[in-house]
Amino acid sequence: MAKNEQFVSQIADIETDFPQWYTDVVLKTKLVDYGPVKGTMVIRPYGYAIWENIQREMDARFKAAGVENAYFPLLIPMSFMTKEAEHVEGFAPEVAVVTHAGGGKLEEPLVVRPTSETIIGHMYGKWVESWRDLPLRLNQWCNVMRWEKTTRPFLRTSEFLWQEGHSVYATGEEAEEETLKMLALYEDFSKNVLCMPVLTGRKTEKEKFAGAVATYGMEAMMHDGKSLQSGTTHYMGQNFAKAFGVQFTDKDGALKYGYTMSYGVSTRLIGAVIMTHGDARGLILPPPVAPLQVVIVPIAQKKEGVLDATHVLERTLREAGIRVKTDDSDNSPGWKFNEWEMKGVPVRIELGPRDIEGGKMLAFRRDTCEKTELALGDAEAVKALLSDISSAMYERALARMRERIVPASTLEELLSGVNGGNFVRAGWCGERACEDRVKEFAQATARVMDGNNDMPVCVCCGKKAQHTVFFARAY
Amino acid sequence: MAKNEQFVSQIADIETDFPQWYTDVVLKTKLVDYGPVKGTMVIRPYGYAIWENIQREMDARFKAAGVENAYFPLLIPMSFMTKEAEHVEGFAPEVAVVTHAGGGKLEEPLVVRPTSETIIGHMYGKWVESWRDLPLRLNQWCNVMRWEKTTRPFLRTSEFLWQEGHSVYATGEEAEEETLKMLALYEDFSKNVLCMPVLTGRKTEKEKFAGAVATYGMEAMMHDGKSLQSGTTHYMGQNFAKAFGVQFTDKDGALKYGYTMSYGVSTRLIGAVIMTHGDARGLILPPPVAPLQVVIVPIAQKKEGVLDATHVLERTLREAGIRVKTDDSDNSPGWKFNEWEMKGVPVRIELGPRDIEGGKMLAFRRDTCEKTELALGDAEAVKALLSDISSAMYERALARMRERIVPASTLEELLSGVNGGNFVRAGWCGERACEDRVKEFAQATARVMDGNNDMPVCVCCGKKAQHTVFFARAY
Repeated sequence: MAKNEQFVSQIADIETDFPQWYTDVVLKTKLVDYGPVKGTMVIRPYGYAIWENIQREMDARFKAAGVENAYFPLLIPMSFMTKEAEHVEGFAPEVAVVTHAGGGKLEEPLVVRPTSETIIGHMYGKWVESWRDLPLRLNQWCNVMRWEKTTRPFLRTSEFLWQEGHSVYATGEEAEEETLKMLALYEDFSKNVLCMPVLTGRKTEKEKFAGAVATYGMEAMMHDGKSLQSGTTHYMGQNFAKAFGVQFTDKDGALKYGYTMSYGVSTRLIGAVIMTHGDARGLILPPPVAPLQVVIVPIAQKKEGVLDATHVLERTLREAGIRVKTDDSDNSPGWKFNEWEMKGVPVRIELGPRDIEGGKMLAFRRDTCEKTELALGDAEAVKALLSDISSAMYERALARMRERIVPASTLEELLSGVNGGNFVRAGWCGERACEDRVKEFAQATARVMDGNNDMPVCVCCGKKAQHTVFFARAY
Repeated sequence: MAKNEQFVSQIADIETDFPQWYTDVVLKTKLVDYGPVKGTMVIRPYGYAIWENIQREMDARFKAAGVENAYFPLLIPMSFMTKEAEHVEGFAPEVAVVTHAGGGKLEEPLVVRPTSETIIGHMYGKWVESWRDLPLRLNQWCNVMRWEKTTRPFLRTSEFLWQEGHSVYATGEEAEEETLKMLALYEDFSKNVLCMPVLTGRKTEKEKFAGAVATYGMEAMMHDGKSLQSGTTHYMGQNFAKAFGVQFTDKDGALKYGYTMSYGVSTRLIGAVIMTHGDARGLILPPPVAPLQVVIVPIAQKKEGVLDATHVLERTLREAGIRVKTDDSDNSPGWKFNEWEMKGVPVRIELGPRDIEGGKMLAFRRDTCEKTELALGDAEAVKALLSDISSAMYERALARMRERIVPASTLEELLSGVNGGNFVRAGWCGERACEDRVKEFAQATARVMDGNNDMPVCVCCGKKAQHTVFFARAY
């Protein structure tokens, strides 16, 4: 058995056992480990570096949009949760509760935030007084906790990291507009930073956030054709403003309630990237978020001049803004190739005595596994290659998603569609009963509604369709 | 009453009521607000931006030193806390405990991390196998919780944000060396980023971290002469390695316990900056961490060309890498001057029709309240001014601290020293009884021990001094 095969044999087959492939890949590439408490994860340096890159890129977009960061407390009085009726119903079953602190029992139990609409609503109620205070647009990067029965690293864990943005506007129109703008920001981010195509649209009543008037989501297609909700934005109307007294004196002197909205993405995006782009050999990381964009593997590294040349090259690439390192460990080149392929580094550069003599270097791109010869030290060519890889990863994922969106007119067609690993586009009458029936019949849920309603009849009851919906099995 | 006086009268007098001055300043400049749960704080955008600047600068230093970031879970099994005897004794009285989650009672209560030696020790026990895995040097940026009876924003709150670095080495010498290196990194950071002089040294047994072999601290002198512990590093020996089974096979084939160390700074640094540099008018923020380094105030802003000129200037300065904004609100220039002075913006630039005509601008530096005329649009001159301000702030605070370190040979001298708002340098025999007696007699504690032991006798018992100690009242 060749070394390559040995290495690959450590991870399950991606086509026949995708769940095990995922577990193998996230653990063996040291992205993550299980924490001691059931359902928790430890994000290891290789995984956390992806999150740092996501944070940096996303945060820059928020700041460019005029949103400021702040930090609100982790612990929320239990009484806050009950102030918005739908909200408590949605979140109460999965909260963790602090009952004791400082050596005694607390007068009121405190909830570890599952999301912060309530505590931020409370503070906005204190801060907002006049129309001059609006809009108020803050974001926080923090940890949240939702006690889940079935967990998987990055996809669903009892604690996860995320950002949550919360804004108040004087009018519902402005708050709704911001809800759609932030959805567009997320979609653009997915495309240009994660190289990941998504479907966006409004969620059904059944799938919306507890307490929202309307929820919008972006859904990405995973390797197995299942959908992963990768970000959501919520228009709250005056629900939370009324619950927490977020009132302002308008220009006309009248006291009015504000309109709020919120939006969030989490460390789940790391799972989305893994399951969108990965292949039989392991991870394929998008260049904009890859902790390492280029790994240099010296060939015949004990020969004079080879390691020196790799270090010169490393410095040249780093100075050009590329995240790069040289693997000068004692492992064989073959072993290094396999390791860095499994870890999904976008470009490997091989550099040996003959390359150095010929003033060239061999670049291997992880996404297509093709090799190209480049002039030694040509950082611009490497940057162009990274940019090519980003576009190609997006285009490939987009083509794949488009191929696997199929229409259905009956429940049987819908079932056959999702069984085949597709998203199914179908009409829906708008009744909860039909949505429930689809779930029961095909174990598929309404992911988002298409803005373009062109399917004539409901896939379930055959009545006139009110919406065209993307149905899929989902994580 | 002039507008200026009105504005200043909003904050208490810094000399006669420093605690109230602090509260007034942090609330009125919107750095922070009280959270709904007693002892918690909300870090508002102006305060959080300081933290982001601290994080960015500190994180770059960690990365340059080869430390990687990771993220460990918030909740720690109660049983972990008890594995290191001193540790549980120190932290048990102030932990918050999750007893219920997901709608039911937990089998084992979970502690909201007060610090993460235990859970990180547990993971290191899983990860470390061979000498090749060492050193292992990780850091995390996160929230921690310590239930405190008396709280003040930034200085002592039940929840705060911090970084905690945790390393394992094969030998005690290396771990001790890293403990001192990180102390030096903190000291350099305090000087060059916060413009804040500190005293560094080893802590006494009484003051050390629960579970450490040795704790080192840096102490800064606040405006009232009290000390604020602003960062600590801890050498743990094998205490935590033994408690959590952090063992490795050494080069000689023998199975050995590792040696660990940890280090942390928190949002308390924001309090340190406020109380080191502030004056009667409010905040004076160090240029490296000020959210805004320059505010441009247009004079006669309704006159044609004035606002245009300020916006051109703003763009020029921003492109030079300066954090800048124009205050083009409807408030009067006088009102704006006072507001931005209270908010501690290092430089204010005034720009009116006559300045524009003359090709100049008036720069006001917040630290000395002096005005200088600069060529209009000269970004390099503004950068030089910011750099001057940084040096001057450090030098002024250093001179002030040096002036206010006084020697004492008796308890009476020590008491008189701390009553006068000084740090007192005195000999100490090394006995806990004498340290306790100083506390009782003068309400002062041993902040750090001086590396230079030149005081002959113990300030308390008169026996031969084993250490020279800086005693002070402390926050």
